[in-house]
Amino acid sequence: MQPSYSKATYRLYDDKADFHKKAEGIAVGLTVGSWTELPEAAKEQMQKHLGKVVSVSIHDPLDAAPGERYADITIAYPDVNFSRDIPAFLVTAFGKLSMDGKIKLTDIEPSADFLSAFPGPKFGVQGVRDLLGVHDRPLVMSIFKSVIGHDLGNLREQFLQQALGGVDLIKDDEILFENPLTPLEQRVEACMSAAREAERTTGQKLLYFTNLTGSTFQLKANAKRAIAAGANGLLFNVLAYGFDALAELAADPDINVPIAAHPALAGALYPSLHHGISASLLLGKLMRIAGADLSLFPSPYGSVVMPKAENLAVMEALLDPTLPQKPAFPVPSAGIHPGLVPLIMGDFGPEVVVNAGGGVHGHPGGSAAGGRAFRQAVDAVNSGSTLEAYAQKHEELSIAIQRWGVRTS
Amino acid sequence: MQPSYSKATYRLYDDKADFHKKAEGIAVGLTVGSWTELPEAAKEQMQKHLGKVVSVSIHDPLDAAPGERYADITIAYPDVNFSRDIPAFLVTAFGKLSMDGKIKLTDIEPSADFLSAFPGPKFGVQGVRDLLGVHDRPLVMSIFKSVIGHDLGNLREQFLQQALGGVDLIKDDEILFENPLTPLEQRVEACMSAAREAERTTGQKLLYFTNLTGSTFQLKANAKRAIAAGANGLLFNVLAYGFDALAELAADPDINVPIAAHPALAGALYPSLHHGISASLLLGKLMRIAGADLSLFPSPYGSVVMPKAENLAVMEALLDPTLPQKPAFPVPSAGIHPGLVPLIMGDFGPEVVVNAGGGVHGHPGGSAAGGRAFRQAVDAVNSGSTLEAYAQKHEELSIAIQRWGVRTS
Repeated sequence: MQPSYSKATYRLYDDKADFHKKAEGIAVGLTVGSWTELPEAAKEQMQKHLGKVVSVSIHDPLDAAPGERYADITIAYPDVNFSRDIPAFLVTAFGKLSMDGKIKLTDIEPSADFLSAFPGPKFGVQGVRDLLGVHDRPLVMSIFKSVIGHDLGNLREQFLQQALGGVDLIKDDEILFENPLTPLEQRVEACMSAAREAERTTGQKLLYFTNLTGSTFQLKANAKRAIAAGANGLLFNVLAYGFDALAELAADPDINVPIAAHPALAGALYPSLHHGISASLLLGKLMRIAGADLSLFPSPYGSVVMPKAENLAVMEALLDPTLPQKPAFPVPSAGIHPGLVPLIMGDFGPEVVVNAGGGVHGHPGGSAAGGRAFRQAVDAVNSGSTLEAYAQKHEELSIAIQRWGVRTS
Repeated sequence: MQPSYSKATYRLYDDKADFHKKAEGIAVGLTVGSWTELPEAAKEQMQKHLGKVVSVSIHDPLDAAPGERYADITIAYPDVNFSRDIPAFLVTAFGKLSMDGKIKLTDIEPSADFLSAFPGPKFGVQGVRDLLGVHDRPLVMSIFKSVIGHDLGNLREQFLQQALGGVDLIKDDEILFENPLTPLEQRVEACMSAAREAERTTGQKLLYFTNLTGSTFQLKANAKRAIAAGANGLLFNVLAYGFDALAELAADPDINVPIAAHPALAGALYPSLHHGISASLLLGKLMRIAGADLSLFPSPYGSVVMPKAENLAVMEALLDPTLPQKPAFPVPSAGIHPGLVPLIMGDFGPEVVVNAGGGVHGHPGGSAAGGRAFRQAVDAVNSGSTLEAYAQKHEELSIAIQRWGVRTS
């Protein structure tokens, strides 16, 4: 059998390093530990455990200022060295190495064998669309205006107003934890009853992503409690628990609802040029391999900003057709109003979730009107119309445009 | 009852921001969501959920260059807003906020109420000393030379040689996962039998920290399997699984052995000036609250370097007498040889674990001699002698000094 390798790519900044030597040091140091001093017989036995340098691409322009010289280094790690879980691969490829200078993990390319251990998203883009019966337009998600300190009745009313606007998805706030005012099961029951009430008006289905929280070893039980109470989606702060927790939740046949990955804490990991893990890997590829059906990340439009190139790289990783796991929905979030919908659909294409909070609740006609304005904006772009033209016959959109304007770039 | 608050402190870089306004925005935005527009009756109800600005300390010298202006901002979050687990507090205090500009989480000060949910280290400094019967000197830990691709016999022999040198603690490599050559229980049995064999020669006790790996929801079971097989310590890659996994392992009465926290992946989080989580919080305070009996981190002496000020801050957080959790052993790691022992003991004081790999195995007399050289170096400093003077009657130390020299600063 051919040995199988999983690759990791790093960007390493150093004004002087011999990057080729550094790459060899990684390939040996993070696998068999030492090589040149091994006796020949030992080398033969160790060969299949030895990492390999795949490529070293040095960026060192003649006029490089201090701090500008870097190399992109790709190392192949033998799959035989680690178990089929994300902690094992990340600890192998970036455990100790993360602390070794100015180095950022920019991508991984797990082997087919490694990937085969991950069923990935249960639903993915197509499955979420099937659940909703919506196949011809981007989805619209809204979030609660505020949740902390509110009781069940208030939360239900907020839910109902959003739902009446015709949004497809409503998610909990990621900072809503188990609490006496809106405990998990009662919250689910209240919100799902509002969903059914709204459905009678809108005639459309709705997924509610309940925030899955609590102690690690209770996550599966909590997920199942939420589902038993009627939840048809889960929101999960993946990075607070690690990718493996998501992978195991997604692989559990009893957790048969879509999971939306929240990027809480991601800003501790992706924004630095010199350290951490790239956004496309962290919020794109890893979230999808681990099984997120939707992945939220900061949009390039709002106040909490991720540069557009990084945004699109996250999107590409979530949709990349070469990965065996189902594609997951990109959900660029924060600062979204109806006037941005043409831009979002232009940047992200049709497989995107338009997610808004203030852009829904801040509508002068209320939250339901805010949801309708978003749906109208999506319909406008989908029908080839400008927002301005479409707004002439759609009042909520017209009001939204007066409130927030239309951004074309 | 007085409302109880847990605090978080951030360093926020911005050349122009109104830091006071920014702090208010955090205190409101990450708790009740909005405040000024609330009706008075709602304010009364929401007051106990509202975050408070504790302090804003602006660093803005007249001659500040671009990028140098920052503020240290402390916010108090009402405990009533989150459950008593580390994911809930981190997601509250740094979930979304981590993505909001150049901001680093530098410290937290959880309330007594929050802290009371965490039993912390089962053993801590004193408990680990009691297990070993060593109370009058720093402990010495050694790590395997190489583990991947080695079979049980080889691993046992490596273990035996280290143990014969008189080290107190031996830890697995953090990249040793479940594998056919050295599966968990057999590895524990082989190493513990080597420990008993060495004990008959050295007359001293030894703790073996087996690497706890695998899927999240199997961690407890794996820990108990290792313990049933005889393991008297566990090594855990905390950051690959999240702090809550550690907290729950440490709180489990059946996991009655010390846990050493490995810093794998920490370099993705602490080194950036502008993003992430400070080393003292990540590898110090949080590890201790969650229950690590020992915490490893990059020493300021080796090739994988953390600045000395950060090292000492990690140490202080692990030993800080004001925290209710037991103090945990600081384990500065990487690049340690016997000639560094005076420096380590000078920098860290008596409650430290001297941890070495190459400094043990690279000894010209072999690994056992390497261990003895470390023990002699510790004894030298403890007895007020210089290494050079002590080496005159201690051959292994003498050889180590010839090999690596003595570093005095």
